[in-house]
Amino acid sequence: MAAWHSPSAAWRERSWWGWGWADEALDDDACRRLAETALRPWMPIDGSVLPVPYDPVLDPPRLIPPSIMEEAFTADPVIRAAHTYGKAFRDVVRALHGRLENPPDLVCHPRTAHDVVATLDWAEAVGAAVVPYGGGTSVVGGVEYRGDAPWISLDLSRLNRVGEVDEVNHAVRVQAGVFGPALEQALVPHGLTLRHYPQSFEFSTVGGWLATRSAGHYATGPTRIDDFVEALRVITPQGPVESLRVPGSGAGPSTDALFLGSEGTLGVIVEAWLRVSRRPSDRSSTSVAFPVYGQAVAAVRAILQAGLRPSNCRLLDPVEAMLNAGATDGQARLLLGFEGPTTPLLADAVTICADHGGTAATSSGDQGTWRDAFLRAPYTRDALIRLGLIVETVETACTWSRFDALHAAVIAAAQAAAPARVAVVTCRFTHAYPDGPAPYFTIITPARRGAEVAIWDEIKAAVSEAIAANGGTITHHHAVGRDHLPWLAEQRDPLFTDVLRAAKRTLDPRGILNPGALF
Amino acid sequence: MAAWHSPSAAWRERSWWGWGWADEALDDDACRRLAETALRPWMPIDGSVLPVPYDPVLDPPRLIPPSIMEEAFTADPVIRAAHTYGKAFRDVVRALHGRLENPPDLVCHPRTAHDVVATLDWAEAVGAAVVPYGGGTSVVGGVEYRGDAPWISLDLSRLNRVGEVDEVNHAVRVQAGVFGPALEQALVPHGLTLRHYPQSFEFSTVGGWLATRSAGHYATGPTRIDDFVEALRVITPQGPVESLRVPGSGAGPSTDALFLGSEGTLGVIVEAWLRVSRRPSDRSSTSVAFPVYGQAVAAVRAILQAGLRPSNCRLLDPVEAMLNAGATDGQARLLLGFEGPTTPLLADAVTICADHGGTAATSSGDQGTWRDAFLRAPYTRDALIRLGLIVETVETACTWSRFDALHAAVIAAAQAAAPARVAVVTCRFTHAYPDGPAPYFTIITPARRGAEVAIWDEIKAAVSEAIAANGGTITHHHAVGRDHLPWLAEQRDPLFTDVLRAAKRTLDPRGILNPGALF
Repeated sequence: MAAWHSPSAAWRERSWWGWGWADEALDDDACRRLAETALRPWMPIDGSVLPVPYDPVLDPPRLIPPSIMEEAFTADPVIRAAHTYGKAFRDVVRALHGRLENPPDLVCHPRTAHDVVATLDWAEAVGAAVVPYGGGTSVVGGVEYRGDAPWISLDLSRLNRVGEVDEVNHAVRVQAGVFGPALEQALVPHGLTLRHYPQSFEFSTVGGWLATRSAGHYATGPTRIDDFVEALRVITPQGPVESLRVPGSGAGPSTDALFLGSEGTLGVIVEAWLRVSRRPSDRSSTSVAFPVYGQAVAAVRAILQAGLRPSNCRLLDPVEAMLNAGATDGQARLLLGFEGPTTPLLADAVTICADHGGTAATSSGDQGTWRDAFLRAPYTRDALIRLGLIVETVETACTWSRFDALHAAVIAAAQAAAPARVAVVTCRFTHAYPDGPAPYFTIITPARRGAEVAIWDEIKAAVSEAIAANGGTITHHHAVGRDHLPWLAEQRDPLFTDVLRAAKRTLDPRGILNPGALF
Repeated sequence: MAAWHSPSAAWRERSWWGWGWADEALDDDACRRLAETALRPWMPIDGSVLPVPYDPVLDPPRLIPPSIMEEAFTADPVIRAAHTYGKAFRDVVRALHGRLENPPDLVCHPRTAHDVVATLDWAEAVGAAVVPYGGGTSVVGGVEYRGDAPWISLDLSRLNRVGEVDEVNHAVRVQAGVFGPALEQALVPHGLTLRHYPQSFEFSTVGGWLATRSAGHYATGPTRIDDFVEALRVITPQGPVESLRVPGSGAGPSTDALFLGSEGTLGVIVEAWLRVSRRPSDRSSTSVAFPVYGQAVAAVRAILQAGLRPSNCRLLDPVEAMLNAGATDGQARLLLGFEGPTTPLLADAVTICADHGGTAATSSGDQGTWRDAFLRAPYTRDALIRLGLIVETVETACTWSRFDALHAAVIAAAQAAAPARVAVVTCRFTHAYPDGPAPYFTIITPARRGAEVAIWDEIKAAVSEAIAANGGTITHHHAVGRDHLPWLAEQRDPLFTDVLRAAKRTLDPRGILNPGALF
């Protein structure tokens, strides 16, 4: 079976079909209990549990590894299966149904940047596509391949060294395949932290974050991985590209900006210098209940526009508050937190909330509940899928003045496209800016068994149209992959797409890198 | 004579040979007084004052304006002279000597984006180069042309409309030719501010800031113009490029990042949506004296690494403190300020300074003095040039651990290259980051009349080598233009340069836009 090195240095099995650790998945009984206690009251489900396939059945590989670096390659069916898709709803449900039509012919685990160079050279020679793979948590079809060529999943998780931790300059040199927990563990002895916690933190890598412009769970201020980049090292089929390590530069267009968000199409990010910071000693937080959702939205806007930059500023709508923070009073909840020297500013933010009808909790107990739910959510998601539900998320960012219409349009579109027009659609803000929020919608609806992907794709299309029509970006932090491409193609200026194509021809003239993603 | 529209809606003459308003330049008597009172004690000068040329003598233009938009073009010799160079030392001294060998054949003042399109079309047809020009304050040869083709200086100052001020989303739509004061004046009635004050603020434009990635005078946090960009509109010879206006997006490589810092080589920025903020009601500031410069440097590092983000955090070395803040005690001065909700954090920063041997002033009086000196500095610079001195600045950014060696190397290189090995070299930090400072050096040395440019070019080369050899960027915020190109070519990965060339071929296939700048 597939085995990955866990951050705690013990061997532990990752799920090949679903989220995270295999042993954390809800078993059949737990799924049934979830159905009885939490779902049956409000969702029409039949109670049956889609079984986990015993062993994946795949077509034989069409490639034979090059003898010179044979040990880096594997054709193990479970590893190939685990690298066939990312971890979107449509990925998990396809895996559960055993639909693994286009698995990678080989999975390659380079141990050095030189291995990456050799793999790209070999792939060019044999006409194979190469899809870079970090932790494989893409939810946008970023790590699968939909073309006809033989293909290699280039799993960078063995480029897993944390290099110099530079205490003088608050920076760390790190290889692309380092997972979130391993990086943070390496920083602990130095009293430092990257402070970048996407929901996938445990199972995603530095390289994946950089390639997809991931956003951490801090709601404001420096939170996107872009904000932490000092310098990158990228291997392209034409050679390496390196940027200068300086704290700031105005020397022409940014080299890093070309590769941040390039999703493996222009090169393979192998190493980065990232800015880190001292672990905050002070923290303060609370949750604020709002009877009127619109006033809660206005409060978040007022907090940001007053110049306050809370580390946490998540607005949960009443259903989110019920599902994820145990709040059953039908009120929205704003989770507010400040860290480090700005800790004393919490009182200012609470005052702004009070001006908008919000009542702060007397304890900050909600937040732990919510954070646990946040990290457990993908496992629960997998159980709901096995119970026959569609469970997926959609996210965007828009200006404040667009939000009301976008919010209403997304909910209406999801419900109109859902079977029997029944869908639960919840919304939370994951990030907030002075000029607008990043709303994150969860959509839950019963699926017809076997037709889950087709139904979801219809909902996704309807919702994406609603987002685009209301001035939202097609993705704030889930990246583009293949699933967002049709809408990105509308939102990205065609001349800029031409520039990206020219960059691609310059760096990857044979077009082997992640073909079909991004453009 | 040349006349520009001043922010106060009165007509006022800009200097064609030197900085800013013609009537603010020091006259001959003022230059002589400056020589007697401030210079003679410590600089070997002869006391003569280089006269301001009466009228520039130029070769006749090699282009005839297209009849269809004749009124947008001018061949007025003073306007052509004023558009020949930027405002670097070498520009001013060349103008004073009447060395205007390669003036633009025509200056074009488009009134609309459509005029820009028509101008680019016409330039392509007649084989003319086009150099976009905002306020013309480049100090790196960014607005001159050194090639053989006939050329047009495309002055965007009549694209001067401030459009919608969006109070809900704290943003403003603004045309590229709007000058700093005009933009701030348009925001005042809304209680908003862009809060971007480069030293050239009064005489530089939004488009110039964007094209050169300018940095404002706030020392930390959002201060580079990049930080304020919501969306851009750029005219390229192949058509317009527009980015989506959203508060944040992770949808692939950033469109804006390609044009920020492109210095007019890829397109003409004609409009932007910029993020603005409420005018801060609270401010607090002080200055801190440090007997030991190294401890002052360490204090700035400690402040930044403690998570504090002062709006002002300028460290002046003892000579800077004497020249610009009137401090004659031989101590370094750190000018510290906080604004808005973080105002109470000044005390924390002062405590850190005390830990490093710093003594805070009892009044904050120094800062006004320093700010006035900051804004007056370019006029004084012009007077010093007329008195026969070389006066120029060089800036960079490096990690903290590189700073000591870089600082020493720059001073040594400047002095070694200066005539008779005598140069005053001062240093201040203009910006500070958790991972390093942005040091800004002023170099003053006597010149041999008539050989000023050659002497300066030698000093500049020596200093630039010292910066590059010590891990500094060739420019933190002065941009690249033509003068920094040899060192940028070393610091920018050649494959990324190839990508920029591919972008250039895509957007400007005939290569008419600012040829010779940036790459």
